[in-house]
Amino acid sequence: MENSKNQQETTKIQKELHNGPFMTEKMEKKNLFATDLFPHNPRGWDETSHFLKSIVELLLEYIKEENDRSTKVLEFHQPEEMAGLIDLHIPEEPMSLNELLKSCNEVLRLGVRTGHPHFFNQLSQGLDLIAMAGEWLTATCNTNMFTYEISPVFILMEKEVTKRMIELIGWPTGDAIFSPDMQFSHVQNIWEWDQFHHFAVLLQKSFNIHTDASGRMLPRALEEQIIKSKEEGLYPFFVCATAGTTVYGAWDPIEEIADICERYDLWLHVDAAWGGGILLSPEYRHKLAGIERAKSVTWNPHKLMGSLLQCSACFVRQEGLLFQVNQMSADYLFQQDKPYDVSYDTGDKAIQCGRHNDIFKLWLMWRSKGMEGYRRQINRLMDMAKYFTERIKATEGFEMVVDEPEFLNICFWYVPRSIRSVDLREKMSRLEKIAPKIKAQMMQRGTTMVGYQPDEHKKRPNFFRMVISNANVQKVDLDFIIDEIVNLGYDL
Amino acid sequence: MENSKNQQETTKIQKELHNGPFMTEKMEKKNLFATDLFPHNPRGWDETSHFLKSIVELLLEYIKEENDRSTKVLEFHQPEEMAGLIDLHIPEEPMSLNELLKSCNEVLRLGVRTGHPHFFNQLSQGLDLIAMAGEWLTATCNTNMFTYEISPVFILMEKEVTKRMIELIGWPTGDAIFSPDMQFSHVQNIWEWDQFHHFAVLLQKSFNIHTDASGRMLPRALEEQIIKSKEEGLYPFFVCATAGTTVYGAWDPIEEIADICERYDLWLHVDAAWGGGILLSPEYRHKLAGIERAKSVTWNPHKLMGSLLQCSACFVRQEGLLFQVNQMSADYLFQQDKPYDVSYDTGDKAIQCGRHNDIFKLWLMWRSKGMEGYRRQINRLMDMAKYFTERIKATEGFEMVVDEPEFLNICFWYVPRSIRSVDLREKMSRLEKIAPKIKAQMMQRGTTMVGYQPDEHKKRPNFFRMVISNANVQKVDLDFIIDEIVNLGYDL
Repeated sequence: MENSKNQQETTKIQKELHNGPFMTEKMEKKNLFATDLFPHNPRGWDETSHFLKSIVELLLEYIKEENDRSTKVLEFHQPEEMAGLIDLHIPEEPMSLNELLKSCNEVLRLGVRTGHPHFFNQLSQGLDLIAMAGEWLTATCNTNMFTYEISPVFILMEKEVTKRMIELIGWPTGDAIFSPDMQFSHVQNIWEWDQFHHFAVLLQKSFNIHTDASGRMLPRALEEQIIKSKEEGLYPFFVCATAGTTVYGAWDPIEEIADICERYDLWLHVDAAWGGGILLSPEYRHKLAGIERAKSVTWNPHKLMGSLLQCSACFVRQEGLLFQVNQMSADYLFQQDKPYDVSYDTGDKAIQCGRHNDIFKLWLMWRSKGMEGYRRQINRLMDMAKYFTERIKATEGFEMVVDEPEFLNICFWYVPRSIRSVDLREKMSRLEKIAPKIKAQMMQRGTTMVGYQPDEHKKRPNFFRMVISNANVQKVDLDFIIDEIVNLGYDL
Repeated sequence: MENSKNQQETTKIQKELHNGPFMTEKMEKKNLFATDLFPHNPRGWDETSHFLKSIVELLLEYIKEENDRSTKVLEFHQPEEMAGLIDLHIPEEPMSLNELLKSCNEVLRLGVRTGHPHFFNQLSQGLDLIAMAGEWLTATCNTNMFTYEISPVFILMEKEVTKRMIELIGWPTGDAIFSPDMQFSHVQNIWEWDQFHHFAVLLQKSFNIHTDASGRMLPRALEEQIIKSKEEGLYPFFVCATAGTTVYGAWDPIEEIADICERYDLWLHVDAAWGGGILLSPEYRHKLAGIERAKSVTWNPHKLMGSLLQCSACFVRQEGLLFQVNQMSADYLFQQDKPYDVSYDTGDKAIQCGRHNDIFKLWLMWRSKGMEGYRRQINRLMDMAKYFTERIKATEGFEMVVDEPEFLNICFWYVPRSIRSVDLREKMSRLEKIAPKIKAQMMQRGTTMVGYQPDEHKKRPNFFRMVISNANVQKVDLDFIIDEIVNLGYDL
């Protein structure tokens, strides 16, 4: 992608960024600073309210634009160029409220609109406005999920929501905690066990166990690996099955894997970070059949369920285990002589001390949809994925990587006209560069974003991974990206 | 604390909670649902805007009340009682927008006001409204600090802010990442090293190294432990010095510890999670003298700097090290053939995959204050701590735990009249129960909150740990808590 913007253009963009009324003229003339607002200035309520409402006006404008399909998804700039477009320095003296509002506007203008209906780049897509409102409230409460003492409502809320999620997993009881990010939750799980089994070997599917062409773990390969490890004097203890893999959206056969785990007395963890939301659909939850046999599960509602990032939960079937393995016995942090039942305190359940409130936005969003709304949402996404798959199959130049996608990931190549008739080896070699080229042009045009990658084992050249998780995606959006790829790639 | 609320009272509170206009009458009559809003209903902009503004009205009301000193800090209820006051269930059918607004109001009413000027319970206090506005924007952008591709502005912003923080630490260069929570950053640090030194022993001061009466690590004890460990065939490699301990606010003597680390070739980590903000004050930064000799530092701006939780940074002096030790080489996540300099991508620098944007709120807040504003804020807090210490020393019945607090933690006992003249052993034994009793009554009255704990080594009975980190705290607030403790404790 060429570094095409010259100084003149840069100045033009900068000028545009500084347009627009921020504080009303009257307020702007006052040249106000943060110290003129609450809590610093107890007589500054009007100014405080005015400033916060001005921020909200900017955000509303952003939301409106983001949902307008004619708005770009992003305005791409190379890092050095971007650094020239926005002033990021920390000043010696305070900046005025009006300058801060201008900064906010610049940041909004120059960012990537991840809620745009043409953004398909990550597993998390779309902006649920109820979840967003929930996060605004969370920020205003600014509390820590540390103890019942300082987060009484949110602690009870977490219990209620995780109880529901445990029912969906299919366990009679269980324990849970929201802690940042799938992988972290994941590490936490492993961590716990490492404390019990010091000579354990960790079998991670992505590195160790072979998969079929659709990306599903081969149970036979797992069993062979277990037997081989034992023969080598190792002590296998942990198997991670994935419900919805990151690239292919594949479902590991949990029932068969659970059988093996029972046979060899292994801990079964199901990583349902991406796929967990499918449990909300009675029509599709069979894809996770056997998940109730897992001893632990991770599930990230910020992915399929569309909660804002971050929102990741870790579940353990055995009640009390999270306490047992994470507790620091830090009496100086978690006093036992409190005037309420300290089993409600969660500080000892997680590795970290300060724990962000990730539950409220999920709770509010879930209530706004109800079980029924989520069911419809998930089923509709599955329909959209089918529609997209059919369109891809029917459109000249597209080839599926996995013929029958099982989830919301649709992996495909686009083959430009010039290489449609070359031999397979050369085609594969030239295809490696096609997806990156198309992606680069997409970003330059700013019209849409979709990810690409090679196969994990580098057996397949770079292909696109389309993900459909934005609850608001329409067929026209799916048509749009197909057309855009053809437009950009046909003559490559 | 007795479970005093009867059913009648519960109903009364519930009734109060449901008062107040939420959506305007016109909107309420329409009985709207989330599906009537953007993005689900593209013709629903007015309703969308109205709903979000209604949420903001609730939040503004909350902020106003929180800053009113006559408002309670909390309304305490036992967990079972609280569960009866608020309906937390996940419904089958969607709930209306009006019901959601009522839920929000209930949550706000029943929570703990951590930004209240009489809340002294945690290291994080107060609600900086600029940081809060920043977090509202962060939620609206809902992006992931994963790659330059999807977070161009925030990635550059993180570079700019951490560059400034590295200068404050005193390193010529360095590498940094914001990742959730002090302890997690901490683990991350250790983790890195564990990958290099498989037979290493970890010396954690809080468990292993003796401290003086003020809670400062004794360098001689550290050196003795190192020598002893080596003699036992262990391989010490990591020393964690703390700049501002959680309970006493003590400063470990970094220069002397650094000398020892150099002598024995040990990795020096400085945990400045709490104390790091002192680097912003030219008058007090000498307390961290020697920090520039550390190889890694953790610093949580959500504590002293007053950014919203969470906001925690981890710094490493050697550039490139975070990449080296955390990278998963996950080409399928972080492609190397992108059309921009991929060294801007941070995905391989952290353990986790999805990384929340914790930088924007800090950046916006810092700009609102400038270096000069922060300097004044920190110095003012130190003055307030001195004022409080003097008042405690001058008030009958109070005894200092550490005579000369060095930071913003002031640890003290309150001795009720009845045990002022008993012998020391009995006094100590009876004091153990005093702080919990006073605290329980404080919470019952809802007037203020301050933490208590015993000494880490259980040598000192339960004492109060006052923390002064709310930028807006006034002398009247400090007077208030002293009076409140006397009122509650005098006759115990």
